[in-house]
Amino acid sequence: MRAGVKTISSHRMSQALHLNSAQIRKDLACFGAFGVRGVGYFVSDLRQHLTRILGLTRDRRVAIIGAGNLGMALADYGGFNQEGFQVAALFDSDPQKVGRRTRRGVEVTDIERLPDVARREDLSIAVLAVPAEAAERALDLVVRAGIRAVLNFAPVPLAPPQGVTLRVVDLKIQLENLTFHLGRAEAEA
Amino acid sequence: MRAGVKTISSHRMSQALHLNSAQIRKDLACFGAFGVRGVGYFVSDLRQHLTRILGLTRDRRVAIIGAGNLGMALADYGGFNQEGFQVAALFDSDPQKVGRRTRRGVEVTDIERLPDVARREDLSIAVLAVPAEAAERALDLVVRAGIRAVLNFAPVPLAPPQGVTLRVVDLKIQLENLTFHLGRAEAEA
Repeated sequence: MRAGVKTISSHRMSQALHLNSAQIRKDLACFGAFGVRGVGYFVSDLRQHLTRILGLTRDRRVAIIGAGNLGMALADYGGFNQEGFQVAALFDSDPQKVGRRTRRGVEVTDIERLPDVARREDLSIAVLAVPAEAAERALDLVVRAGIRAVLNFAPVPLAPPQGVTLRVVDLKIQLENLTFHLGRAEAEA
Repeated sequence: MRAGVKTISSHRMSQALHLNSAQIRKDLACFGAFGVRGVGYFVSDLRQHLTRILGLTRDRRVAIIGAGNLGMALADYGGFNQEGFQVAALFDSDPQKVGRRTRRGVEVTDIERLPDVARREDLSIAVLAVPAEAAERALDLVVRAGIRAVLNFAPVPLAPPQGVTLRVVDLKIQLENLTFHLGRAEAEA
């Protein structure tokens, strides 16, 4: 829309996103027939459909669990504080950290207050930024506070109870991807 | 290998990895025919091939640029310090940060010393953990120091010069993935 483009073809999207155009058409068709043969997709329609599909029609309030370096960084992370997301709370169990603020001004709250704050602040996503040994207890507290979507940065596998969605962030995969390209460049050199 | 499994089928891998088994066979075949019809793959062979394909046959030494909360967290991140990777240096331009150490003991070095340290420490991957406004200069310094693989956490698009591979980490995608599931759960409730 910003670029003044009114329609976009699956071919054009495949170039921009480095995806297969047939797969794009197939995936979008799963959610209803909103493409036009020979034209592509109306950008405004597509944006509306994708927003609905991704569940981004309402703002999601995010809690960060753990106010170490990673938690402090994530609380201020731009991607967690724009278009549909807002870091509304940051928790820690360390009394020395409680009361401190991130650069953006998010205050560290005692983890004991999670159930109350979750209700009051309508928290729907929790990000676990705790050490491995604290992750299971953190997940338990989060689930008991009624939060059903969890993003785990702790380097330990967790089994969420039924009804709770858990995603794991493994940044090592990004390094492996880079070494794949480095290895090829070196082989060619 | 740890589980005592000597061979593995593409079907079994497809279940464990949530991928299509035909795609797994096709992808692996791109790098040579090392599967056995009716048997699958010998685990030790497969491991060796994948290690080679991913360029993990040698250790990669990683530099973190930026010693803010994110940089400090990444320098100590388990995934960046195991099997094939090691954070060997952490740089910042702030004299107040130079000389400090992360919990694991990585010392913050003056960014001016990047070219020397890159050579001495054989740094081959740089992770940009700097504010948006500092990212372009950081990329420039990294490239001039001879590093050709860059992982960018700074929330700004960067254009790497030819011969340099750049990957962008956008953690917001993980939140969007979670809201997709949340939205469906709410629709069903």
